[in-house]
Parts: sequence; structure tokens; C-alpha cells
Amino acid sequence: MNYKMIRYIIGMILVAESAFMVLPMLVSVFYGEYDVLMPFVYSILAAFAAGVLFGIKKPKNDLVFAKESYVSVAAGWILVSFFGAMPFYLSGAIPSLIDALFETVSGFTTTGATILAEVETLPKGILFWRAFTHWIGGMGIIMFLLMLTQFSEGHSLYIMRAEVPGPTVGKIAPKSSSNALILYGIYSGLTVIEAILLLFGGMGVFDAVTTAMSTAGTGGFSVRNAGIAAYESAYIEWTVAIFMLIFAVNYNLYYLMLLRRFKIAFKSEELRAFIIIVFVSTVVMGISCTEYYGSFDVAMRKAFFQTTATISTTGFCGNEFMNWPIICHAIILIFMFTGACAGSTACGLKLSRIIMTFKMLRKESHRLAHPHEVTTIKFEGKIVDKDTRSFIMVYMSAFFVILAVSSIAVMMLGYDYETAFSATLSCFNNIGPGLGEIGHSGYFGFFSDGTKIFMSLLMLTGRLEIFPMLILFMPSTWRRH
Amino acid sequence: MNYKMIRYIIGMILVAESAFMVLPMLVSVFYGEYDVLMPFVYSILAAFAAGVLFGIKKPKNDLVFAKESYVSVAAGWILVSFFGAMPFYLSGAIPSLIDALFETVSGFTTTGATILAEVETLPKGILFWRAFTHWIGGMGIIMFLLMLTQFSEGHSLYIMRAEVPGPTVGKIAPKSSSNALILYGIYSGLTVIEAILLLFGGMGVFDAVTTAMSTAGTGGFSVRNAGIAAYESAYIEWTVAIFMLIFAVNYNLYYLMLLRRFKIAFKSEELRAFIIIVFVSTVVMGISCTEYYGSFDVAMRKAFFQTTATISTTGFCGNEFMNWPIICHAIILIFMFTGACAGSTACGLKLSRIIMTFKMLRKESHRLAHPHEVTTIKFEGKIVDKDTRSFIMVYMSAFFVILAVSSIAVMMLGYDYETAFSATLSCFNNIGPGLGEIGHSGYFGFFSDGTKIFMSLLMLTGRLEIFPMLILFMPSTWRRH
Repeated sequence: MNYKMIRYIIGMILVAESAFMVLPMLVSVFYGEYDVLMPFVYSILAAFAAGVLFGIKKPKNDLVFAKESYVSVAAGWILVSFFGAMPFYLSGAIPSLIDALFETVSGFTTTGATILAEVETLPKGILFWRAFTHWIGGMGIIMFLLMLTQFSEGHSLYIMRAEVPGPTVGKIAPKSSSNALILYGIYSGLTVIEAILLLFGGMGVFDAVTTAMSTAGTGGFSVRNAGIAAYESAYIEWTVAIFMLIFAVNYNLYYLMLLRRFKIAFKSEELRAFIIIVFVSTVVMGISCTEYYGSFDVAMRKAFFQTTATISTTGFCGNEFMNWPIICHAIILIFMFTGACAGSTACGLKLSRIIMTFKMLRKESHRLAHPHEVTTIKFEGKIVDKDTRSFIMVYMSAFFVILAVSSIAVMMLGYDYETAFSATLSCFNNIGPGLGEIGHSGYFGFFSDGTKIFMSLLMLTGRLEIFPMLILFMPSTWRRH
Repeated sequence: MNYKMIRYIIGMILVAESAFMVLPMLVSVFYGEYDVLMPFVYSILAAFAAGVLFGIKKPKNDLVFAKESYVSVAAGWILVSFFGAMPFYLSGAIPSLIDALFETVSGFTTTGATILAEVETLPKGILFWRAFTHWIGGMGIIMFLLMLTQFSEGHSLYIMRAEVPGPTVGKIAPKSSSNALILYGIYSGLTVIEAILLLFGGMGVFDAVTTAMSTAGTGGFSVRNAGIAAYESAYIEWTVAIFMLIFAVNYNLYYLMLLRRFKIAFKSEELRAFIIIVFVSTVVMGISCTEYYGSFDVAMRKAFFQTTATISTTGFCGNEFMNWPIICHAIILIFMFTGACAGSTACGLKLSRIIMTFKMLRKESHRLAHPHEVTTIKFEGKIVDKDTRSFIMVYMSAFFVILAVSSIAVMMLGYDYETAFSATLSCFNNIGPGLGEIGHSGYFGFFSDGTKIFMSLLMLTGRLEIFPMLILFMPSTWRRH
């Protein structure tokens, strides 16, 4: 194990984080919130000092293999969350350290689960940092990549694989820092466009920027207690809903569109499935909610918002969906499993994995019935090789086993069945809201400290697609060879 | 597809079923229940006539390949359930046809879920048939095998694989009808011993025989409304609990013991895990229930009973576990997933699959971190080949995907979250009792007809280990090649 290189990578990550924290500090200065200025200064200095301490000397042996990459990513996210929690804790915005940590992890993992019931009284600098963690976390992968490609070109792909959201990244993944920059540009560009469109809808600048950042990261933190519903504007609801949809699509498709390869982009099996699912869900939920809202138009808007908010794993609070008919709950629950497209900032199992799993089950049934026939599986027009197929099955098994074990563990911590299960699924798939006590606002404040720590680890495990965290905590990783 | 052979096999199965029904008819004659005599006669004649009609002519081409085997098994179980439901329906014991079908499927699949709230007023012949379906279903595999080996030696192994409970059957599976007879002998012998021991405990002959049959099949139907608790006897509780444990162990180990190969038998990784799990669960549940029962002794007995009843997927109703501390619910829920040993009459995922899954996750994490190392997985002292590993992962994925989709489907049919999930898990893993509205008695009477049909299909899918049912309903199975 190249410990020096791991230390160096984590050092660089922390320096980057300290730089990111300057922005919310400036926001608090701009709004004259001088009482949160020093907490930001201390946090920036702490992250910077730790980063410099770790990363001051670039090791001579800069070889980074798979193991080092996974360990750096997993340990990096944990440390980034610790330093990121400092402003919340030091400013007194979140008086409990564990709560502050939970909130930060929820931010960076773009979960959007919160321990804050009241956010409107918080300083603007703090709220900005809260939304900004979503934005950083959403494309965290690219940031990490960009940094790493600068000093160990070629090895960066391991990091990529560990942190990238979804299984199909290999195809048109950014292989150099310039490609990564393009993806980063798409991300930033779309965020800016959303913020501007929200401004047109009469939102204030601060609300527009933070809402756009939360949407981009498919996070779900809001600067209003009632979430998007607080603005009471159909225009804003439509805008946010459409952008949740946009940010849940594989970014590689936007990249292809930039290259004017529209045909290939629109041929994507996953994209088509995504569009059909969103359409069907909107219609079904809309029709079943028409009676509740007394208006077909309103019901359709609410249904579209809820569909995109859930499937994109953003979880913005816009509807009191707990009062909707049970069929809507069932649809919401389905999306809490699936998530959206691979290669987007959305979390969850990803549609491509779900599609592949159903194809695998069909193939396996066929193989059992016809043991001598040779069959293959195609996805996105290409034959999927045996290793990839096998890994998807391992991933699915890992996902469900961890989900079942964790839900039961949370039950054992003393919560009822529905709350325990939906909190676990919500954290593990980085969604935010849930069923039971958590509800549409994604409020996790009532959980015990132990449960919050457990949930934080679950959010990280889910966001990093399971294996980096398993590798970090596996004894064989730390054994000398 | 050799349709003639499928028809012939199903014909033989129905003839066998009609023979089995003679026994409950004799029971009803013995008890002077002449009003249920004719319903049994009609059912026997109907099954026999259908069987003869289907199976009268042995096809010249008796080649049975994988596809035909799976289709025969799946279609055979469905038809056997239809004819098996006749006595319940014709006698008026269960006035609804769908209810009668549900009860029969629950019997043959050894689930033990029931639509009957009141059983003590039913004729003894009907109660005997109800318990007998468990006994037939538990070793159904061997019965099928025995029959098939007589006319198409060599091809029988396909059937074997489709219907056998658990993944490790290949190892010391009965390869000839004589070996199958030995396993059948073990099953019958143990059933007789349990019945005799129950007689010593003061149970009546009828109750002892039916209880022993329900235990042997790990089913859970009882002839008393309150289940085993009705006898109010610690001796009976201990006896039933110990036999639930015995019937949940891989029968191949008893076979090895008969061959005096004790060392190999006790070296079994799965057996050791099973014993440790049962011990830990008994101690933990016993300690946490001591306050509730006011006595450590009673609590330990109740805990042992509940542990074996759940892990063996028998689901005998012995305890009001709904009032126990939540940690007990969590343990019960774990067992509702795991089930017991492969190669037993117990259902569920099976411990061997669970052990293999955890080994796979560890291996996969290690492989990602050390991509150039060659690693293998050992189970029961042998290296597990790639195909087996891959199939276990596919099976796990299939299990959880079907579980999630089915639970959500049941929710959509209008049931609350906890009831829908635990009913689905209970049926799919052939357990019987559940959480929520179903409770410790496994009462499914309040579900709608549509839900009962869906649950019946789930029970069959679970009992046949998923793929035979998928193959039966897959269009490609029925396409001409």
C-alpha cells in the first residue's frame, strides 16, 4: 500500500475543499453576517492546514493502484465531511457535532436528508454552504478526477470507476482532464441556466442560486422550510421539475449532443426507458391525484414534480404526497429503488442496472431451459461481456443484502418497521425523503445519535457505489503483502 | 418441446395425487364423517380420470430435456393444487374456490399461510388432508423423482435441480431411485418418531399425526386454532421445536450419518452456522423476553420455539411474539429472509446461499482492490466454480427484485406497507406468519381474491426456486424452434 500517496491525495482534496469554503464565506460577508465569518475562517484554515500537512510533499513513488484509489476515495469523502461540518458546528447553526456531520454527509452525498426542521432563520452563508455541498458532491467525481489527472495521468481511471455514478461510464468516460473539463462545463452551464430561469420566475438571487445548486447535484436541500412549495409558483415548480429531469440524464449524452451526434444520443436505451417511465408515472399519478387537487392541471404538475423529484433522487419537498392515493406511494417507492440514469448526478440503483438485471433474468431462465444454446445480452447496442454481467449481479446482491441488513439493524435501534426501512433506503440511495415518520420533508432529526452515524455511513456507502467503503473497512486491505 | 412427454408426466403426477387422497378419505370414514366422503370420492375420481387421460399412453419419444422438465414441474404443481383444492371446496369446508386454491397451494408449498380463522370445527378428514399436503409437498421432490426415474432414468436430474430445495444438492444428491428411497425413508422415519413422542406428551393420535406431518414438511398448518400453544404443554413445545430444527437440516447429512460418516457430516459449514445462529437467537430472544414472561425458563423455551419455527420456515403458531421487544421482531425478520439449510424441507433463501453471498462480496471487494490477484472461494471444503458463483448471484438478484416488485404490487392492491411487504416475504419464502395485519397466526383471509391468486403464484414461485415458474411463463419457452 502506497500510504504516502494516499496521504498526498487526501491532502490535495482537503486543500480543494478549503478553497471551496471561501465562496460561502464571501456570501456571509456580502450579507453582513459577521458572526459566521470567523467560523468559516477557522474551517478554511483547518482544512487548508490539514491539507498542506498531508500533501506538502509529493511522494517520489506516485504509483497509485486500484487499492490506493479506493482507499483514497472512501477516506477522502469521510474527511471532507468532517471538515465540511465545521462551519455548521462552529457557527452554532447546528449545535450537535453528530448532527452537523450528518447534515454535511447528506450534503456531499447529494442525499438531502436533514436534521434541521427550521432553516429560514439560519445565516445565508451557512445556507449557501449547505446547498454548495450538494453542488460539489454531485460532480465530486470530476473534481477528484481533474485533480488526480494532473499528477498521475493514467491511474486516474481507477478513481473514476470507484466514484462515478453508474455502470456504463466506461463507454465515453472522460479519459483526459480536458474531457472532464467539458463535463464540468456542461454541469456549470446548466446550473447557471436554471438559476437565471428561476430569477425570471420572481425568485430572489440567493434562492435561485442555492436552488439551482441543489437541483444540479440532485440533492434536495432547500433554503425554505416548505421547500419548493414555499414559492407557490407553478412556473418555479415546472422549472425545477424540468431541471431535475435534465440533471438525471447521463451527461455523456449531452457531451454527444455537443459533438452534434444527436442520433446516437437519442438511441440510448436507458434514455428512452427513462422518458417512458417519467411519462407513464406522471400520467398515472396525475390522474389518481386529480380528485385530491380538484383540478387535472394542478394534479399533472404535482405529479410531474413528484416523479422527477423522486426518480432523480433529488427529493425536493414540493407535495404533501403522504395524502395521495396509495398507488402513488407505490410508484414513489419504485423510484426510490431505481433512481435515474447512469453517468448523471442522480443516485439509486440506476436504470441501466435495472434494465440489465431484467435482461439477465430472462437470459438465465432461457439458459436453464435451453442449456446448449449460446445466448448473449445486448445493451445500448453492444454485447455485454461476462465480467460486466457478473459484476452487475454481484452489485445487485450487495445492494439488497446491505439494504435488508441495515433496515433490520435500524429496527433493532428501536424504530418501527416502515420508518426504519424507508430511512435506510432513502439514505442508501441518497434520496432524502421517505415514508413513515420521515415523510416528504426528509426530516431525520428525531433519530438517535447512533442511528445518525449509521445513516451517515450508509449515505457514503451508497454514493460511492458500495465497494470503496467495503474495501476501506476490509481487514485484507490493510494487511501487508 | 416434447408436449406428449409433459402431458404424460403430469398425468402420472395426478394419478399419484389421487392415490394420496385415498388416505384422508379413509380418515373421514374412520371418524364417521360420511358427509365429506363423497367430496373425497369425487376428487379422487377427478384426479385419477385426468391423470389417466393425460398419461394413458407413454409416448414413444420419452426424451425429456431441461425445458420439458421445468415446464412439467411448474405446470404439475399448479395442476396438483387445483385437484388438491377439490375436497376443501366440494365439502363446503372452504366455500370460496379461490380460498380453497390458496389453502392448497399454501399446503403443498409448505407455506402454512391460511384463510381459515376457525379450523377446530372442520371434519377430521379435511384437516388430515390439509396437514398431509404439507407432508407431500415437503418431499415432493423425492416423490416426483422416484416416479420419473422409473421411466426415464438419467433425465430425472433435471427435475431434481428444478425442485430440490437449495443450491448444494449436486454433491450427494440421490442419483438413483434407491438413494431417493433412503431419503424418503429418513423423512418418514423422523415423522413417525415425532408422532410417537407427541403421543407420549398426551396428544391425541389425530393431533399427533397431523402435527408431525406439518412439522416434517416445515409447513405450519395446525388442527387447533391456537396452534401448538393450544396444548399448553412445555413437553410438546420442546418436542415440536426440536423436530422443526431436525427437519431444517440438510437431509444429506442424515444420509451421511446412516453411512456412519459422522465426521464429514459434522464438518458441514452450513450445519455449524445453523447451530450457532439458532443458539445465539435463542439466547438473545430468551433474555429479552424474560421480563415479559416473568420467568427465564419459560422465556428460553418460547425463544427456542420461535427461533426454530421461523428459521425452519414452519411458522407454527406458538407465541404471541407481536408483544415481544422489537429486537425479537428484527431477529424474526432476519430468519424470514434466510430460512435454514439447503437440501432440507425448509424454504427461504437458505443459509448456504447467504454464506456464499457474503463470501462473494468479500471476494469481489478484494478483487477490485487487487485486480491482479487470483482468488477462489471455498464452501464446504471445496472450491466453488465460476458458474455456480455466478448463478448464486443471479438467484439473489432475482429473489430481491421479485420481492421488491411483488411487495409494491401488493401495496398497489390497497394494503399498507408493513402488511404488503411481510405478506409477500412470507409467501415467497413459504413461511406463513408475518408482521402487520397477518401476525403470528399467518391469517390471510382478509386479502382480496386478486391478491390471494397473486400470493398463490408467489408461493409456487418461491417453493420451486424461482426459475421453473419464470420458464413456464416466458414466451420463448413456447416458441417453436
